[in-house]
Amino acid sequence: MTVTLNKHRLVDTMETQARIGGTDDGGLHRLALSDEDKAARDWFVDQLAALGLSVRIDAFGNIFGRRPGTDPEAAPVLIGSHLDSQPNGGIYDGQLGVVAALELLRTLEDDDVETRRPIEIVNWTNEEGTRFQPGLQGSGVWSGVFDIETEYQRTDRDGVRLVDELERIGYRGDTPAEPREVYEAYFELHIEQGPYLDANDANVGVVTGVVGLSWGEVTFTGEANHAGSTPMHMRYDAGVAAADLLTSIRRIPGRLGDRTVGTVGSIGVEPDSINIIPETATVTWDIRDPSDDVLDEAVDQVRAEAESAASREGIDCAVEETARTAGVEFDDGCVETVQHVADEFGYESMRLISGGNHDASHVDLVCDTAMVFAVSEGGKSHTAEEYTSWDDCFTAANTVANAAFLTATDRR
Amino acid sequence: MTVTLNKHRLVDTMETQARIGGTDDGGLHRLALSDEDKAARDWFVDQLAALGLSVRIDAFGNIFGRRPGTDPEAAPVLIGSHLDSQPNGGIYDGQLGVVAALELLRTLEDDDVETRRPIEIVNWTNEEGTRFQPGLQGSGVWSGVFDIETEYQRTDRDGVRLVDELERIGYRGDTPAEPREVYEAYFELHIEQGPYLDANDANVGVVTGVVGLSWGEVTFTGEANHAGSTPMHMRYDAGVAAADLLTSIRRIPGRLGDRTVGTVGSIGVEPDSINIIPETATVTWDIRDPSDDVLDEAVDQVRAEAESAASREGIDCAVEETARTAGVEFDDGCVETVQHVADEFGYESMRLISGGNHDASHVDLVCDTAMVFAVSEGGKSHTAEEYTSWDDCFTAANTVANAAFLTATDRR
Repeated sequence: MTVTLNKHRLVDTMETQARIGGTDDGGLHRLALSDEDKAARDWFVDQLAALGLSVRIDAFGNIFGRRPGTDPEAAPVLIGSHLDSQPNGGIYDGQLGVVAALELLRTLEDDDVETRRPIEIVNWTNEEGTRFQPGLQGSGVWSGVFDIETEYQRTDRDGVRLVDELERIGYRGDTPAEPREVYEAYFELHIEQGPYLDANDANVGVVTGVVGLSWGEVTFTGEANHAGSTPMHMRYDAGVAAADLLTSIRRIPGRLGDRTVGTVGSIGVEPDSINIIPETATVTWDIRDPSDDVLDEAVDQVRAEAESAASREGIDCAVEETARTAGVEFDDGCVETVQHVADEFGYESMRLISGGNHDASHVDLVCDTAMVFAVSEGGKSHTAEEYTSWDDCFTAANTVANAAFLTATDRR
Repeated sequence: MTVTLNKHRLVDTMETQARIGGTDDGGLHRLALSDEDKAARDWFVDQLAALGLSVRIDAFGNIFGRRPGTDPEAAPVLIGSHLDSQPNGGIYDGQLGVVAALELLRTLEDDDVETRRPIEIVNWTNEEGTRFQPGLQGSGVWSGVFDIETEYQRTDRDGVRLVDELERIGYRGDTPAEPREVYEAYFELHIEQGPYLDANDANVGVVTGVVGLSWGEVTFTGEANHAGSTPMHMRYDAGVAAADLLTSIRRIPGRLGDRTVGTVGSIGVEPDSINIIPETATVTWDIRDPSDDVLDEAVDQVRAEAESAASREGIDCAVEETARTAGVEFDDGCVETVQHVADEFGYESMRLISGGNHDASHVDLVCDTAMVFAVSEGGKSHTAEEYTSWDDCFTAANTVANAAFLTATDRR
C-alpha cells in the first residue's frame, strides 16, 4: 500500500515557504536563527499545529511534530530536513525535504490512514553552517556528535552568540536535544547538489551513503630572490612546486576510483610580488571518496607528489592532513525501502553516494537511515539559480514519504 | 696612468655611512627622504664640502659635487649612485657606488691630480622606490623620463607627499632637476644583486647593459562549483589552468636563451575556499632578456601556453602585458674603458648584463654610460645578509673610479 501526495498542495507549500526570506531573483536568504528563520519556524509550527500534531522544541531549537501510531510501544519513524538557507541560496535545497514530510502527514490525515509506528517530522537547526559554524549543527547536537554547551557559544561574524539568538527568536526549547527513545528509522530528502541525476536523466536518487573526506595543506619553503638577477638554475621557487603539485592533485582522482574527487580550492605564495621569486607557497586539498582506504591512498599520493615537486625545485615541503571524515554507508534495509518505493511508482531511479554531507550522516549514528535526492538541474546549488522542476519535486517527495510510510506500517 | 684608492679609508667611510640608519643585525634601514636619509645626505654634503667641491642640490633632491677640470669648456664626467636603502636592506647596494666616487675625489685631492674634464659626483634621490614609487626616481626626473610635478605628488603609505618630505628634510634644491650641460660620460658602481660573479669566481663585473622586461597577467575564468559533488569530468577549474601555466612559464626561458629569466611571483584563486572549485585564477609574469625580440617571443609563448591551459580545462583566459621596458645597451666606449681598467689592475673581470634596473638606465638616455658590479656573496641583496668582502669592495671601487678618471683625462 502506498500513499500519494497532493502535488498541487506540495507546490503551493513550497511556494509559500519560499516567500519567507525570498529574494528578488527567486532565491532564498534565510540564515539560521535570523528573523527570517524565526518566521519560517513559526509558519512550520503553525502547520504542525493545524494537523493536531504534538509539537516539541528541543534545547537546540530542533522542531519535532509527532503523529501517534496505533502501537504505543512501537519505535517511531523520523522524517525531515532543514528550513534554513545559505546566503542568497536556492528555495529547494533541504526545504523540499521538510515540505515533503509535511505533505506526508497531511495526506495521512486527509486519507484517515493510521500507522502502527508514530511518525515524527523534524526541522534541524542550522544545517547550512554559514552564519554559525559548523553546519549540520542541530542534528550533530541531537546525535551526540557535538557538545551542546560548546555549540551554544558559537558566534556569528558580528560576535552574536548562537544561544542568545536561539533565546531571542524563542526557539530554545525545554526538552533535551537528544533522542528520547529508540527510533526505527530516519529518512531525509534533499536536492542532489550535484549533476549526476540530471546528467543521467534519472527522476530520483536513491542515496546509499555519503563520501568520506580528507582536507589538508601542503607548504613549500624555498628562497625569495630577485626575479631579474637570479639565473633559472639557481632558483628555489616555492610557487613552481606548488603549481606542480596542484596539477598532480588534478590527476590523482583518475588513478583511484570513478567516484573519487580531488580539488585544490586555495593556492597562495609569499611574498606575493610580481618581481620576487616566491619563498613559500601553500596548496590546500579536498579529496573525497566513500572508502577510507582510498582516502588513505590519496593522501599518500599527495605526499609523494608534494615531495617530488619539492625535490625537483630543491626545496622543502610540509604535508598536513587537517581533517578527515569517514564515509557513511546507509542502512541496507532503509536504502532498499527507498528503492522499492521508487520501483513501485515506476520512477527512473539511480543509486548514488552523496558528495556533500547531510544531517542524515549524524542521524545514521542514532538509527537506521537513508536519503532520497531530488534532481537538481545542472547540479546548481546554494544559488538562486538552483532549480528542481515541480515534477521532480513531487517524485522525490512521494519517494521519501512512502519510504517513511512503509516503514511506519512495517511493510518495508 | 691610474689612481689607486685608499682602501683603509674606503672601508672606514663604508662603515661610517652604514651607521646612519644602521640596524642591529648589521643591515641598513634608510628609506628615501626619511630622517635617516636626511642624516646621510647631511654627512655626504659635509664630505663634499670638506673636499672644497662646489655642491649643488637640484629641485628633486639629487646632490651633485663638482671638482673642476683644467679645461673650462670640457664636458664633465659624472660618477655616483644612491645612499637610500630598502627597508632592512644591506649596507653595500648603491652606497658603495657613492663612497667609491667620494674616494676618487679624495684620492685626486690627496695626490694633487688634475683632470682636463670636471668630475661630478652624484647621489640620486629615491633609487629604491619602496617608500615612494616608482624607484630610480631622481635619475628618472633628471633624465626627463619622469615629470617632476607628477613625482612631487607621490605619497607614501601614510599619505605623506614626496615634495613635502623633500621640503621638510631641506633637500628641495634650487637648481633645475635636469642636465645643465653636455656630459661626457656616467659611471655607476652597484653590487650585482645576483650570483653570477660569485658563482664564476670573478672579482668585478663589467656591465654591458640592462635586460629588458615584460610584466603581465593572465586571468582564467571557469566555474565555481562544489568540491564534493562535482565529478572530475564536469569541472571548469580556473586554478588548474593557472597552475598549468605557471609550470609552463618555468620552462619558457629554457627555450629562449641562456640569459632569459621568467618568474611567476603571484598566483591567486577566487573564491579561495578549500571546498569550492576556483572560478577565477590569476598568474603574473616577469620575463627578462636583453633583446626585445626575445621578449616578444616570450610573451607569444605565454599567450599560447595560457590558451592551451585554458582549453584543456574548457575555460576562458585573458592575457595582458602590463609593462614593457626595453633593454639598455651601454656605450661600447665606456664599457671598454671599464674593461681596460679591470685588465690593467689584473682583476678577474666578467662581462654581464644586469638583471635588475639601475639609475644608469636613465642616465644612458642623457650621455654615454657604463656600470661596474661588485661581487655580492651568494647574490643576496635587499637584506642585512647582503655581503661584499672589503677586498671586493675595493676592487670594484678602484675599477669605477679609474674608469671615470681615465675618461676625465681623455685616456679612455
